[in-house]
Amino acid sequence: MRQGATPQQVEGVVAAVEARGLRAHAIPGAQRTAIGITGNKGAVEMPVFESLPGVLEVIRVSHAYKLVSREVKPDDTVVDVGGVPVGGRTLVLVAGPCAVESREQTLTIARRVKAAGAHLLRGGAFKPRTSPYAFQGLGEKGLEILAEARAETGLPVITEAVDADGVDLVERYADAIQIGARNMQNFSLLKRAGQAKKPVVLKRGMSATLEEFLLSAEYILAEGNYAVILCERGVRTFSDFSRNTLDLSVVPAVKALSHLPILVDPSHGTGRRDKVAPLSRAAAAVGADGVMVEVHHDPDRALSDGPQSITPEMFEGLVRELRQIAPVLGRRI
Amino acid sequence: MRQGATPQQVEGVVAAVEARGLRAHAIPGAQRTAIGITGNKGAVEMPVFESLPGVLEVIRVSHAYKLVSREVKPDDTVVDVGGVPVGGRTLVLVAGPCAVESREQTLTIARRVKAAGAHLLRGGAFKPRTSPYAFQGLGEKGLEILAEARAETGLPVITEAVDADGVDLVERYADAIQIGARNMQNFSLLKRAGQAKKPVVLKRGMSATLEEFLLSAEYILAEGNYAVILCERGVRTFSDFSRNTLDLSVVPAVKALSHLPILVDPSHGTGRRDKVAPLSRAAAAVGADGVMVEVHHDPDRALSDGPQSITPEMFEGLVRELRQIAPVLGRRI
Amino acid sequence: MRQGATPQQVEGVVAAVEARGLRAHAIPGAQRTAIGITGNKGAVEMPVFESLPGVLEVIRVSHAYKLVSREVKPDDTVVDVGGVPVGGRTLVLVAGPCAVESREQTLTIARRVKAAGAHLLRGGAFKPRTSPYAFQGLGEKGLEILAEARAETGLPVITEAVDADGVDLVERYADAIQIGARNMQNFSLLKRAGQAKKPVVLKRGMSATLEEFLLSAEYILAEGNYAVILCERGVRTFSDFSRNTLDLSVVPAVKALSHLPILVDPSHGTGRRDKVAPLSRAAAAVGADGVMVEVHHDPDRALSDGPQSITPEMFEGLVRELRQIAPVLGRRI
Amino acid sequence: MRQGATPQQVEGVVAAVEARGLRAHAIPGAQRTAIGITGNKGAVEMPVFESLPGVLEVIRVSHAYKLVSREVKPDDTVVDVGGVPVGGRTLVLVAGPCAVESREQTLTIARRVKAAGAHLLRGGAFKPRTSPYAFQGLGEKGLEILAEARAETGLPVITEAVDADGVDLVERYADAIQIGARNMQNFSLLKRAGQAKKPVVLKRGMSATLEEFLLSAEYILAEGNYAVILCERGVRTFSDFSRNTLDLSVVPAVKALSHLPILVDPSHGTGRRDKVAPLSRAAAAVGADGVMVEVHHDPDRALSDGPQSITPEMFEGLVRELRQIAPVLGRRI
Repeated sequence: MRQGATPQQVEGVVAAVEARGLRAHAIPGAQRTAIGITGNKGAVEMPVFESLPGVLEVIRVSHAYKLVSREVKPDDTVVDVGGVPVGGRTLVLVAGPCAVESREQTLTIARRVKAAGAHLLRGGAFKPRTSPYAFQGLGEKGLEILAEARAETGLPVITEAVDADGVDLVERYADAIQIGARNMQNFSLLKRAGQAKKPVVLKRGMSATLEEFLLSAEYILAEGNYAVILCERGVRTFSDFSRNTLDLSVVPAVKALSHLPILVDPSHGTGRRDKVAPLSRAAAAVGADGVMVEVHHDPDRALSDGPQSITPEMFEGLVRELRQIAPVLGRRI
Repeated sequence: MRQGATPQQVEGVVAAVEARGLRAHAIPGAQRTAIGITGNKGAVEMPVFESLPGVLEVIRVSHAYKLVSREVKPDDTVVDVGGVPVGGRTLVLVAGPCAVESREQTLTIARRVKAAGAHLLRGGAFKPRTSPYAFQGLGEKGLEILAEARAETGLPVITEAVDADGVDLVERYADAIQIGARNMQNFSLLKRAGQAKKPVVLKRGMSATLEEFLLSAEYILAEGNYAVILCERGVRTFSDFSRNTLDLSVVPAVKALSHLPILVDPSHGTGRRDKVAPLSRAAAAVGADGVMVEVHHDPDRALSDGPQSITPEMFEGLVRELRQIAPVLGRRI
Repeated sequence: MRQGATPQQVEGVVAAVEARGLRAHAIPGAQRTAIGITGNKGAVEMPVFESLPGVLEVIRVSHAYKLVSREVKPDDTVVDVGGVPVGGRTLVLVAGPCAVESREQTLTIARRVKAAGAHLLRGGAFKPRTSPYAFQGLGEKGLEILAEARAETGLPVITEAVDADGVDLVERYADAIQIGARNMQNFSLLKRAGQAKKPVVLKRGMSATLEEFLLSAEYILAEGNYAVILCERGVRTFSDFSRNTLDLSVVPAVKALSHLPILVDPSHGTGRRDKVAPLSRAAAAVGADGVMVEVHHDPDRALSDGPQSITPEMFEGLVRELRQIAPVLGRRI
Repeated sequence: MRQGATPQQVEGVVAAVEARGLRAHAIPGAQRTAIGITGNKGAVEMPVFESLPGVLEVIRVSHAYKLVSREVKPDDTVVDVGGVPVGGRTLVLVAGPCAVESREQTLTIARRVKAAGAHLLRGGAFKPRTSPYAFQGLGEKGLEILAEARAETGLPVITEAVDADGVDLVERYADAIQIGARNMQNFSLLKRAGQAKKPVVLKRGMSATLEEFLLSAEYILAEGNYAVILCERGVRTFSDFSRNTLDLSVVPAVKALSHLPILVDPSHGTGRRDKVAPLSRAAAAVGADGVMVEVHHDPDRALSDGPQSITPEMFEGLVRELRQIAPVLGRRI
């Protein structure tokens, strides 16, 4: 739509699209509103729409993905997570334990990362574990603890859902719903997240191409939820020194193709405590919209992923370094 | 348990295990019944169980997986799929279209593969597709068509479920429930499949290690469903000439570590029609318990995966070749 | 050239090509002689050549490789290694120790594999080792031992050269020069091998695409040595159960694009003794022109690669199985 | 050796080592001199050496690599390349064309990168090319041009050698010898480089583990050349958006295990111009000792690797950004 197109004009185009049996997605941007059209089997009658009031141009999108594409929406998307804007001028710091283990553990860590400058709290109540015999998370009890940590610290909460029932619960308690790497192509879960009223953090699958990653995001947007944040967390290679290979070049690649914000998770990306700070600095320098790190006050006794958690002290040092790097890319913390 | 242990003795051990808050899994074999114990946090009181009537020995399993392990159950597991034994002396041929597209298409193909010697019919009613805009399958209508094809040809049916609701439906209509590669670590789905009354075909994830593959199978067995068939379908590499890299060395590796049967799917494994027959022959020669191939009578008009489907004529030729290779490994078709 | 083109006509075309500053490669086939033209920067004046006597057609080759391509030479190339044809109706068995360790060790193994049915003897005198402190081979002394084993058993010898000086020596003592996986893109070595008077066995690099593999072969042909045998030996992946992932789908892919023969080496491909026989069977079934296996009479004391060497007894059992599989593909042993 | 050990004491230990048929490598550090011992088959008589004058302790090294290990030499190695220290407080900028194409091209680029702040000039005279028909470099003529560019700009020169003859030439004309990724396990070339009088820049192979990378460096040190600089340039994965996947986590991993400096080459690492600056910033932030980038004043007409070359203007902007990031790690440009 043109700059200054009225809400009535936007509604008019949406109605015209839907009258043809197609689906219209009005996506407001900083300057202009974009209207994505999906559901067409063949070519769309472009001239019909071009002549409607308020329409600037009709762009045919060549990729398999549409709504996530910069062609459809040139402006960066800024996603609001409980009042914290992700994708704008702030380099967003998401920190917290891998798993919610207890009230005391979570509150201790939440206070420490808040004091150090974190913007958002992370922590798992539902843990997808490779082994059926590993700790699977506290479930709803964990969500209650996270909500209590938010009430005390003011930090909005991001936490993972692993199935449709979990999305119901996470939607109720948390500020953003995380879809984990192993579920990146769990399309039923993506569709359910697309119907949620909360933003979604979508992690890249362990061997996902960029095309697949963006199409999984497209599943969420296609259901009407445009508040999607991507997250790189490392891909699987032959590496003998890190659990995964953090693929930082995906950040400029996403920025070129999509309007969605992207975080980097160096904790899962490297699997090793001593690499978290260096790779977090690198993530900030490459242009990520934020970093998501696991922090534990007693990592050697953590119930999951202890070896990749950093201490609150290490997190404080990291924040000091990131404050110096952020301005190079026109950001602040 | 010893050879010749009575059902009462087996029940006695199960009761003793459960009395300690643990979970007992009685797994009958050709010679002896094994009882897997799960749910223990620390060490199990081995002497207690060793002294029970009928007990041969108590083996501590060092791997993260237990129930799928050959240490727990040395005999090969033979899974019954609608009367067809998978994992025994028969080299099992599973054939059919990638997706159920129509009644006529499915029945045409089912008749052709039956005539050529197939033992089981495959075909997708729920299709997990990378793009939200691609054909997603006929759903329950597709399951009805598959059931009709079974009624006419006598071929038991394997078809994929992508979520819990799908498992309900597939369990009702089909003879085995397939879990696709993208859902190999969808642990909620694995647990649901573990409660199903039908066998499960579990495909290896695109970048799954053998440890992860077996642990995903363990999720299903740990819920009580011991009828699991593994399936190799190619892993993701840098290959520039095949969609995936079919990893046939996983077959002897599985045979060494696990009692579960394993199929090979060269259609997804290669993504190219002209490689399906050579890799099917190789799968039989390496020792797989069967091959699963996509057959379409008009592959160039298939709604999905046409380029990797072979024609019924090519399938007939393949069966002739497999009949010659199977005896080298002491099998027949 | 047309079928029945005379040697004079072939020479006439070669002269015409060279008169234009280009390079002509006359490659005789079973039916017809092909003349590859290289050295052209832009388009070749096709009509000039088409009108020469004996010329059937001029084909523009679109791939970066030319001389290795089936477009240039539709017939399969059969390479003569000391009298053994590689690439024809025989499934060629290449067997021997990883490294030549001593006269006695090599002769013992050579006699055993000869008796079991092997056609060619393999064994390394120059060993490229990851560590500078590992056994690097006996050098020229090892070549002498191999020559003695050939004299006694009649088995022609394939052995590796790792640099230009090594090619000089191997060319003198052996029947074929092996270029190892680590040197697949050592272009100086490829050029030197291209000037050799003996056939070359070129192993696929650990992460080589098919395009790169064929272009490395092209380096050898472009220097005038058309007797090149390709060899798949596994690619590097994330596998947790085999040293490399044997990529058998490369065999039909090579057969479609190139006229060169291809062997499979399941010893390096899997790195594990118990997978050598299954993967050798699979290699024969997929259509490879032969298999190359490491055999050692005392593998646990081998100076290199003991864990992947099979015993002479295992080799005899393997030959029995391969004799049954070969006829399925119209081959014999 | 102890701090303050005299040259005579060092020589005494070296003599004692050599008297036992072993090889001694005296490696001077900022604080102390380390003496690496290689050539031992079994255990070394440690007490003999511990009692020699000036000896602080004898450390048994558990890795396959020894001389490259931080256990042998705790201090960072600073390599002098024509007067430029690599591995110290300076973030080293290596810039220049992929290939030397002409005198004018190379001098134009050398002047521009010198003005922008580069410390070292890179440029290939011998180009290892995947295809035998691609431009293979100007050879010695290219080396003369590089020497002229050094004479005019004062920038020391790094350039690749692809075989032993090439090392002779590069050693004569340039200030450091580059071993390319494809030759990382060309052990004959590594040994020759180990006898050179100039520093060596060793690029990581396309699918090399860290263990293999360090062992290849060990080959060079074991021949007596301790001036080795490592270089990460991306590994091969399934990525669909970059030529290689730049593996920045190797930088902290190398720093933990080895005393050698490490550069990052984001041009080869990404293969795309628009990713060079972001990944160069990330390389500086992760802790690399320098970055090596391809710069071309007319990249669209470059004879090789044009798509990954940045313009001199882009390089100037990058240097401005790196000047801001370097101090975060206690470095300057």
